[in-house]
Amino acid sequence: MTREDLIHEIKKKGSFLCVGLDSDLRKIPEHLKSESNPILAFNKAIIDATKDYAVAYKPNLAFYEAMGEKGWEILRETLDYIPKECFTIADAKRGDIGNTARMYAETFFLQYDFDSVTIAPYMGKDSVQPFLEYPGKWGIILGLTSNQGAFDFQFLDLKSEGKKLYQKVLETSSSWGDESNTMFVIGATKADMLKDIRQIIPNHFLLVPGVGAQGGSLQEVANNGMNQDCGLLVNMSRGIIYVDDSENFQEKVKAKAEQVQKEMQALLKGFDLI
Amino acid sequence: MTREDLIHEIKKKGSFLCVGLDSDLRKIPEHLKSESNPILAFNKAIIDATKDYAVAYKPNLAFYEAMGEKGWEILRETLDYIPKECFTIADAKRGDIGNTARMYAETFFLQYDFDSVTIAPYMGKDSVQPFLEYPGKWGIILGLTSNQGAFDFQFLDLKSEGKKLYQKVLETSSSWGDESNTMFVIGATKADMLKDIRQIIPNHFLLVPGVGAQGGSLQEVANNGMNQDCGLLVNMSRGIIYVDDSENFQEKVKAKAEQVQKEMQALLKGFDLI
Repeated sequence: MTREDLIHEIKKKGSFLCVGLDSDLRKIPEHLKSESNPILAFNKAIIDATKDYAVAYKPNLAFYEAMGEKGWEILRETLDYIPKECFTIADAKRGDIGNTARMYAETFFLQYDFDSVTIAPYMGKDSVQPFLEYPGKWGIILGLTSNQGAFDFQFLDLKSEGKKLYQKVLETSSSWGDESNTMFVIGATKADMLKDIRQIIPNHFLLVPGVGAQGGSLQEVANNGMNQDCGLLVNMSRGIIYVDDSENFQEKVKAKAEQVQKEMQALLKGFDLI
Repeated sequence: MTREDLIHEIKKKGSFLCVGLDSDLRKIPEHLKSESNPILAFNKAIIDATKDYAVAYKPNLAFYEAMGEKGWEILRETLDYIPKECFTIADAKRGDIGNTARMYAETFFLQYDFDSVTIAPYMGKDSVQPFLEYPGKWGIILGLTSNQGAFDFQFLDLKSEGKKLYQKVLETSSSWGDESNTMFVIGATKADMLKDIRQIIPNHFLLVPGVGAQGGSLQEVANNGMNQDCGLLVNMSRGIIYVDDSENFQEKVKAKAEQVQKEMQALLKGFDLI
């Protein structure tokens, strides 16, 4: 999906919501467990309930891989079920030397038809570049993550540059591609840093996890991170898909997604984007 | 596999060779392509040819994922075919927030029965720790990688510590577990740095890629990196598995593996380890 198409979808739906499909057999509603394929049934129910309010879906690969071969079949069928106008993200956090990165890009862009893949930056340029060579496909590089472990390395002060590691990662890796094929993961739990981050990467789209279950604020993310094209995809996983576990969970999930979309719509209006 | 068992295998075989199964349909011998499952046939042939000379096998996940669901079946069948006394490494370079890392650990340690998984350190402690909680299983953390992109971030000088990023990564992440559950990836293309690295992590096992196709020297790796328990697993992928593509490839692969094992045996003897 091109940047223009993504922006069009955001404006049309009045939403920059990404729904994270961290689908776990231990957490889905009890009554679905008697289905022949419980996780696929759950994913379809979640997609049905949220597709009017979400512009993107992000299956978390770990949850599918943990089911073995069957998990990858479910992933493929889930991907087929997501409406074509929605942006899809393989949250896989891959990253390896050039010839291996090329195989990962083939996996997610050719074998499965994802629009984008999340990538870890530690191994540098040749580990990222193969993901940036497919027209209409995206690499989403980890910049500043939403977890406690982000403080172990990402905030280290560098000697000669007056920067922290994550700032250097954003600066360097944003030069490998451009705003049409590169996004960055920036955790909402560090939303106060978004203003500074926008100095380094004013135009890139940011994938923002951590709103909801991890405690980040949507308002703060928008105030500090929104740009002239919106430039944000805010992901919510547990805060939407596990909002209820009764037989009526779909209604509750839908109501939650609609509530988030209404907040996003107001924010987009406030920034004169719609 | 425990550290003691691994050391026992190394001494018994006179080898610290790990064979990397980067198995690619475009590169295997032509005559295997008419088999019903060419990659599995190739892997079995490679394992048969090398099992007397190698102590470990490292399937590179990218090459299996790129084949889709079928690839994971081949991975499982390959793993079943590897002799039980060999150490197995899922070269997957995973790394994600705690609850997701837990699912990846389940994937590779429970769903598939690997002894170890390679892990990217950028997201810090909670992204690594779930891999260190299974007795006899290992997390292998990226320290210093063998590719050109390693120079983008891993060598950055830190401000207050007089260290480079990779040194800080080794120092910090070695405290999350111990020598019985943690190894580090250290590229052979930077073998001259192994002496300094041994100051930081004297006892840990190191997984060393980059000998052979990427240009690293076995002699130099051993001289600078071997410790009182050997402490090395040197990986060769392309340099062994694609050494020949004729119908007699198995003989050439076997001869190459034996040649490497003989060099390793001499090095182990030179260090009075056998």
